[in-house]
Amino acid sequence: MRLKPLVATLALALSGNVLADEGMWQPHQLPELESILKAKGLEIDAKSISKLTEFPMNAVISLGGCTASFVSPKGLVVTNHHCAYGSIQYNSTPENNILQNGFLAKTPAEDLPAAPGSRVYVTETVTDVTDKVLKGTKKLKAKARYDALEKNEKALVAECESDKNYRCNVYSFHGGLEFYLIKSLEIKDVRLAYTPAMGVGKYGGDIDNWMWPRHTGDFAFYRAYVGKDGKPAEFSQDNVPYEPASHLSVSAKGVQEGDFVMVTGYPGRTNRYRIAAEVDYVFNTAYPKSREHNSKYVSLIEENSEDGSQARIAYESTIAGYNNYIKNYGSMIESFNKGTMFERKKQFEQDLSAWINSDRKRKKQYGKVLNELSALVAESQQHNERDRMVGYVHRSQMISTARRLYRLAYENQKPNEERESGYQERDMPRFEAGLKRMTRRFDANVDKAILLHFLELYAALPQNERYSEIDTAFNLKNGFNKADAQTLLDDMYAKSTLADETARVDFYGQTLEQLKASDDPFLRYADAIFAVMKAEEDKEKALAGKLQSARPELMEAIIAYNQSINKPVYADANSTLRVTYGTVGGYSPQDGLVATPFTSLEGLLAKNTDVEPFDAPKKQQELIKAKLFGDYTGGMNTVPVNFLSNVDTTGGNSGSPTLNGKAELVGLLFDGVYESIIGDWDYNPVYNRSIHVDSRYMLWVMDKVDNAQNLLDEMKIVK
Amino acid sequence: MRLKPLVATLALALSGNVLADEGMWQPHQLPELESILKAKGLEIDAKSISKLTEFPMNAVISLGGCTASFVSPKGLVVTNHHCAYGSIQYNSTPENNILQNGFLAKTPAEDLPAAPGSRVYVTETVTDVTDKVLKGTKKLKAKARYDALEKNEKALVAECESDKNYRCNVYSFHGGLEFYLIKSLEIKDVRLAYTPAMGVGKYGGDIDNWMWPRHTGDFAFYRAYVGKDGKPAEFSQDNVPYEPASHLSVSAKGVQEGDFVMVTGYPGRTNRYRIAAEVDYVFNTAYPKSREHNSKYVSLIEENSEDGSQARIAYESTIAGYNNYIKNYGSMIESFNKGTMFERKKQFEQDLSAWINSDRKRKKQYGKVLNELSALVAESQQHNERDRMVGYVHRSQMISTARRLYRLAYENQKPNEERESGYQERDMPRFEAGLKRMTRRFDANVDKAILLHFLELYAALPQNERYSEIDTAFNLKNGFNKADAQTLLDDMYAKSTLADETARVDFYGQTLEQLKASDDPFLRYADAIFAVMKAEEDKEKALAGKLQSARPELMEAIIAYNQSINKPVYADANSTLRVTYGTVGGYSPQDGLVATPFTSLEGLLAKNTDVEPFDAPKKQQELIKAKLFGDYTGGMNTVPVNFLSNVDTTGGNSGSPTLNGKAELVGLLFDGVYESIIGDWDYNPVYNRSIHVDSRYMLWVMDKVDNAQNLLDEMKIVK
Repeated sequence: MRLKPLVATLALALSGNVLADEGMWQPHQLPELESILKAKGLEIDAKSISKLTEFPMNAVISLGGCTASFVSPKGLVVTNHHCAYGSIQYNSTPENNILQNGFLAKTPAEDLPAAPGSRVYVTETVTDVTDKVLKGTKKLKAKARYDALEKNEKALVAECESDKNYRCNVYSFHGGLEFYLIKSLEIKDVRLAYTPAMGVGKYGGDIDNWMWPRHTGDFAFYRAYVGKDGKPAEFSQDNVPYEPASHLSVSAKGVQEGDFVMVTGYPGRTNRYRIAAEVDYVFNTAYPKSREHNSKYVSLIEENSEDGSQARIAYESTIAGYNNYIKNYGSMIESFNKGTMFERKKQFEQDLSAWINSDRKRKKQYGKVLNELSALVAESQQHNERDRMVGYVHRSQMISTARRLYRLAYENQKPNEERESGYQERDMPRFEAGLKRMTRRFDANVDKAILLHFLELYAALPQNERYSEIDTAFNLKNGFNKADAQTLLDDMYAKSTLADETARVDFYGQTLEQLKASDDPFLRYADAIFAVMKAEEDKEKALAGKLQSARPELMEAIIAYNQSINKPVYADANSTLRVTYGTVGGYSPQDGLVATPFTSLEGLLAKNTDVEPFDAPKKQQELIKAKLFGDYTGGMNTVPVNFLSNVDTTGGNSGSPTLNGKAELVGLLFDGVYESIIGDWDYNPVYNRSIHVDSRYMLWVMDKVDNAQNLLDEMKIVK
Repeated sequence: MRLKPLVATLALALSGNVLADEGMWQPHQLPELESILKAKGLEIDAKSISKLTEFPMNAVISLGGCTASFVSPKGLVVTNHHCAYGSIQYNSTPENNILQNGFLAKTPAEDLPAAPGSRVYVTETVTDVTDKVLKGTKKLKAKARYDALEKNEKALVAECESDKNYRCNVYSFHGGLEFYLIKSLEIKDVRLAYTPAMGVGKYGGDIDNWMWPRHTGDFAFYRAYVGKDGKPAEFSQDNVPYEPASHLSVSAKGVQEGDFVMVTGYPGRTNRYRIAAEVDYVFNTAYPKSREHNSKYVSLIEENSEDGSQARIAYESTIAGYNNYIKNYGSMIESFNKGTMFERKKQFEQDLSAWINSDRKRKKQYGKVLNELSALVAESQQHNERDRMVGYVHRSQMISTARRLYRLAYENQKPNEERESGYQERDMPRFEAGLKRMTRRFDANVDKAILLHFLELYAALPQNERYSEIDTAFNLKNGFNKADAQTLLDDMYAKSTLADETARVDFYGQTLEQLKASDDPFLRYADAIFAVMKAEEDKEKALAGKLQSARPELMEAIIAYNQSINKPVYADANSTLRVTYGTVGGYSPQDGLVATPFTSLEGLLAKNTDVEPFDAPKKQQELIKAKLFGDYTGGMNTVPVNFLSNVDTTGGNSGSPTLNGKAELVGLLFDGVYESIIGDWDYNPVYNRSIHVDSRYMLWVMDKVDNAQNLLDEMKIVK
């Protein structure tokens, strides 16, 4: 499982080709690429892929953070096991441990409700709203510009969402050069139809995360439900399966090495156009420091919660998340130090500047933008050590909860549409769910130990880098005394009621006056630092406003320059629908080693130890030993389990359908290899490989291991 | 670097061939294999390889624990860097750190003396002495048989060594079915002529040990010296370089994938004919328990010696050695659990029994031997837990030193030829060196902490599995009390003088009466347990005597059976000269991964971090970046660094010359891959691969990096 919200991109190349398969293309760009796509193996019309309401794109959906696709006329949705993990866990009990054992609804009536807040988003329109977003901002600067943009965007979203069946968002492309309003049907009744056992769906677990060779059956099935009128509705027994306009066929023949594949989905975030100064800071300061502090964070949790204790269980997913980042940043730092990204970035900027300066008009238009942007970047990094330490102090769940409650009360003073993003009425279901979730993910002693540690680091900052409000609140004016700080925190945690769910939820919705009157020590802290933190936020917004002016200008220059040297231009990933294409194939992770493009059932069995996470179901093991492969070999002497391709993906693409040239589903994208993690910043055709579940393996498990014939019957299987 | 004295074997196969390249052949067997060898690519006469005093075998020499070869008419010897490590370290000083920086004698006059005790052994004759060893033993049983064999062997050795220029040993083949007397010229003046920097010779260090991909320049050069009369002599400035009868040419062309290679050397120990009961015990009990206790051993050292302290430095090589075993056993346990060795072993014994029982004569001769051997094996394992714990208690250096001194005094009461092996006059230089070496490898607190831990485990044995003498000595009659035990040990260590080198060496050579009179607490302990331990030893010898009768019988049956099904038979490795042959080629360590047969200079550079053990010399890095490959590419676009082949080797083979079909040196054997470690027990053509330094890399480093033109000039380089 990769980082869902963030990180990890692959870039791609047909080895030997000068023009590699890099690129996360907006659907409307595909017709331009038609000749390349056709040459590589696309059989359907490239134009059809550019139309969101036609096959195959109308079968590709977002789960918010993950991608999925419709695979039956009755609203059956396939995605990654790790994308449905929360819903599987939610329905799992000690008596009926479906997380461990898997689950199959034999009829839709047996479908289980997905975890609260689960949604299926079907993108219906993508509208260029650049002019509307920028309207009236031309003469504005800094925070005024930032606020005006926010206001314009909120108005567009509110207008769009006046139809309650839709969720709308404005997305910025090329750092604010273009804006698109994306309108998606929001299906609110999502149910779990089928998941294999954890020994299939999470086979290899965190050990194999980002690794090849891989043998993970990372798939699960939802079903989307709507009201009897066919419109989105909250969960109800009366709801009926949603009938999508189209759905994908699933191939039992699969792919071979060298075959064309494309992946359609919602990649989260890439940073491929960042300037050298940003790259320098991120790889030489931010990532190494985060890695160090996050490692400490994990060891503090482990030192303060005994193995197997309630406290440790509460933090298991937090630990897994931090370890995920530690591994992720580790890979990126490794790749950065070995690679030449920084040198190439600097060279690119020299070349770009030379090109700009070689033309009088260009020089006038873009001559100063790189320096301007560099200055703004330097400004944003000026207090990075302070910002980092305050950030870690404020990760304390007691502090962050108090601050969020306080901020909500503050925002509630304003009309809904003027409230800060995250605090509007549309955000409240998530807000409340977050307040409740803390109960299962919190332990006071752990939280306190972490806070104590980061307070000590914060206190070691030079005086002029500290906030007197924080110093006062934690009595740090005369330096840090561990025993005193411990006593102070003991007292605060003893007096606060925020650790109690009922008390916590009681604060939700209280007025600012009420919260100001509370003597809860963490609300007192939130109150004490509010003004100064708000001032910092305003400064950040002012800076963001300046960046929002400078970056699009630079992007305009970069686009023009790249076009002048015939380099294709695609926007950085921003959680909007994209298409990437490439080829099935392996790579050499190191001198002396070659990763071959497919893994096999036999390889899975060889890896099996019967100890989690290498604990395939016994039945599956027997089937493999007996070589009962069915019609799922696609001409190989085995059932292929996972495969590699060079498609260009990142977090958010998880669950994306992998399509062949006929737009049949041949796999599910679920991860990238370790050496590809830096791909979010830098495309490297040698190392960037995505990992897919092979559709043959998925179908084989459904048919032979889990007897999911009912689902297979409603799907269209291409044999 | 692999375990030198023990473990790790590779077996081999041409993929697709039914008859794989398994086998460590005695030279006299080679003519029988001539047709296979010729078909695979041997160009010289197979008979020539069977003659020890002719080319190429007379160029292959033993260093005692490692193999080497002559590569110039002036006594120049090439072996592995890790085989010469002790000598490199011995000559290294803070002012002239040749271990770190490398060393080159520009003329023989600059050669440095090797570490004390370094020897070059040139095998001259191998004589079948089976009849002489077994003479008069036919009617003897148990200990009487064991003692008679020992006596016969010692007499043969003594007679052979009457010429002081030779070292002689009797080696048992097939578990005592055959015995050979091997007579080797013992060259006593060995000097270091050249070593690359540690960043070449130990590149990858312990991290890469047993691993592929690999980029280790594991080579170094000695020079053998003799007296002016051409006979072995102790070190003297007057000595002259030894002129070997022949020497190997070194290929600058190297090998390609699929090429024939053979390796000649002194593999230490394999266990391929052990019975199922032994395999069961070793893999399900002995190795897992050793692994557990050895891991604890290492953590006790680490907990009781601060990082960087004198104590920690003293134990660094001990820690490295234990970690080496932990990794080794870990690999073997892993391979055993994944593989089918045990099932195949049982099946083989069934098949063998069926074959034996199918013939009346055979049944009479061999019908009972498997059961007999099984019973003896069970007997030997009866007290394994006790033996293991006593063994660990006696690893305390204070105890083991006291026991060895005491035993020496005991043995010295007898005429030299009757003394136990290890306590004869010929053993004394090593004995004394061991006493002195303890100074650099000992810390009282560490030793005490380890002893305390294992005393606690020993004390937890059931009463009837303990020795009352040990219980009395450590006051364990009424169970283990940690505080009391600690006090007792504190007292013993405070009173003993054995930690002091002078005092220790003073005890060396004292009579038994003198030692009995000593009040050194550890000598008191040695005295207290001597009788009971001697009685145990006699029981073990009695058992060994029985095993020495049973095992050859079984081996006779196995040989006859294997011949009946046309399976070639070679003896288990026993540190005698062997030849193995095979092919250059990669393998698949896991589903989804392929190890390619060569690594390259570019791969070395990509791995380089400038942090030990990945710290290639700067000059070397520059040469690689500039692609200054010289004439050392052999037609590749790089200089190959290491390569894989399927030759069948194990510890002791380290430093062995790897020869092509013309008997030119194309590499040096220095390791096996991780998956091959179990090869000492079980041949697996899929996984068993040996790792070689490529001769092209060795020559390139000598020529381009270290300017060793003087050595290249005296060698014969085939271009």
